[in-house]
Amino acid sequence: MGKKAVILLSGGLDSATVLAHAAHDNYECFALSFDYGQRHRCELDCAGKIAAAFSVRQHVIAKIDLRLWGGSALTDDKIAVPDGNNCPTIPQTYVPARNLIFLAFATAWAETLECRDLFLGVNSVDYSGYPDCRKEFLESFAETARRGTRAVDEGWKFEIHAPLQNKSKAEIIRMGTALGVDYAMTTSCYNPDAEGRSCGKCASCTLRKAGFAEAGVPDPTTYSDQEK
Amino acid sequence: MGKKAVILLSGGLDSATVLAHAAHDNYECFALSFDYGQRHRCELDCAGKIAAAFSVRQHVIAKIDLRLWGGSALTDDKIAVPDGNNCPTIPQTYVPARNLIFLAFATAWAETLECRDLFLGVNSVDYSGYPDCRKEFLESFAETARRGTRAVDEGWKFEIHAPLQNKSKAEIIRMGTALGVDYAMTTSCYNPDAEGRSCGKCASCTLRKAGFAEAGVPDPTTYSDQEK
Repeated sequence: MGKKAVILLSGGLDSATVLAHAAHDNYECFALSFDYGQRHRCELDCAGKIAAAFSVRQHVIAKIDLRLWGGSALTDDKIAVPDGNNCPTIPQTYVPARNLIFLAFATAWAETLECRDLFLGVNSVDYSGYPDCRKEFLESFAETARRGTRAVDEGWKFEIHAPLQNKSKAEIIRMGTALGVDYAMTTSCYNPDAEGRSCGKCASCTLRKAGFAEAGVPDPTTYSDQEK
Repeated sequence: MGKKAVILLSGGLDSATVLAHAAHDNYECFALSFDYGQRHRCELDCAGKIAAAFSVRQHVIAKIDLRLWGGSALTDDKIAVPDGNNCPTIPQTYVPARNLIFLAFATAWAETLECRDLFLGVNSVDYSGYPDCRKEFLESFAETARRGTRAVDEGWKFEIHAPLQNKSKAEIIRMGTALGVDYAMTTSCYNPDAEGRSCGKCASCTLRKAGFAEAGVPDPTTYSDQEK
């Protein structure tokens, strides 16, 4: 058995690809998902299926409530999910400090497991507007996690792996397809309907559709806006 | 009205003193407590009383579950709370990455409130064994929070205020007494009985007792081990 890894698993296309990557590299995988009050809560069902498909050692869904303060279209019903992906600044779908919170939990679990490797599916090609998806943030987080845990006294450090950091959506889809990811198990939509069907119009759906088209891979997603 | 501040309020002696300090400095105070599965959950009742006594603008108790992985005497019933304060290394009451998680939530709330000032009652005199109570951790956290939020794009940064960092327990008690803190509202015990009475024996009770004695301030605490 390989080294342990804690993997942030949202149920989306990117984190499924990252889990496949870590499993392929022979890590013993511990998957961590968050029930945080997200509008697209159906992603947690997807996370469960993906975790099972890659036989993770343990899958934990941590319940936290980011609706306590909202501040994002994903956690505040008063803010609408915008269509498309044409935002010049930080998008309304940015959730304040979300990856900081998620990585803090991952660090706590990793420390308890005596695990030093954390994986997440951030990407700064398609999500350059999200500050918490950038390399500069991840580097600083790794140092903060080292200083705030027993790592600092024991002389080791956490490695934050972001294998999708510089890949386009099409490159991610090709990578995951080669690793055996069944993308029908994943969801990307920020604004799914009551049956969990993707809207086909939000920034995340737009990127997903374009990514499959560019990769030349059939898109297994059922969009609620598609022609029958 | 002064600037906004988010204050981590545990219900203990230290964080009550920090809230009094921030209120005295004319900050508009937003208090954040955590129901995290702690053995000493009665501290949340104390936090509510302290928040009311200092008329905070809002008091949020965030429910998270650090028992998902345990790893500490405070969050795992299989690990006993040790007596006294004679631990040469990291104590068993250290909760993996707790302040990292707490500060991550405080950052999220602060970002939503457009607030740049976070306060917490960490102390590296009495708690030098806790990595997440040290200055080096807090400095690194502030930089990580800046890089992971809209602060980085907007050109500002978070200030992490730790006014008790270099004070002894006696100095903290004198400071809080001068600021009008009623320490009868606070609790420090790691292992209280079912009625919430302090054990008088754990490291935290030991420090509290000695602090009041050294400060020359009457200790208002009811200890379950005290002579009647």
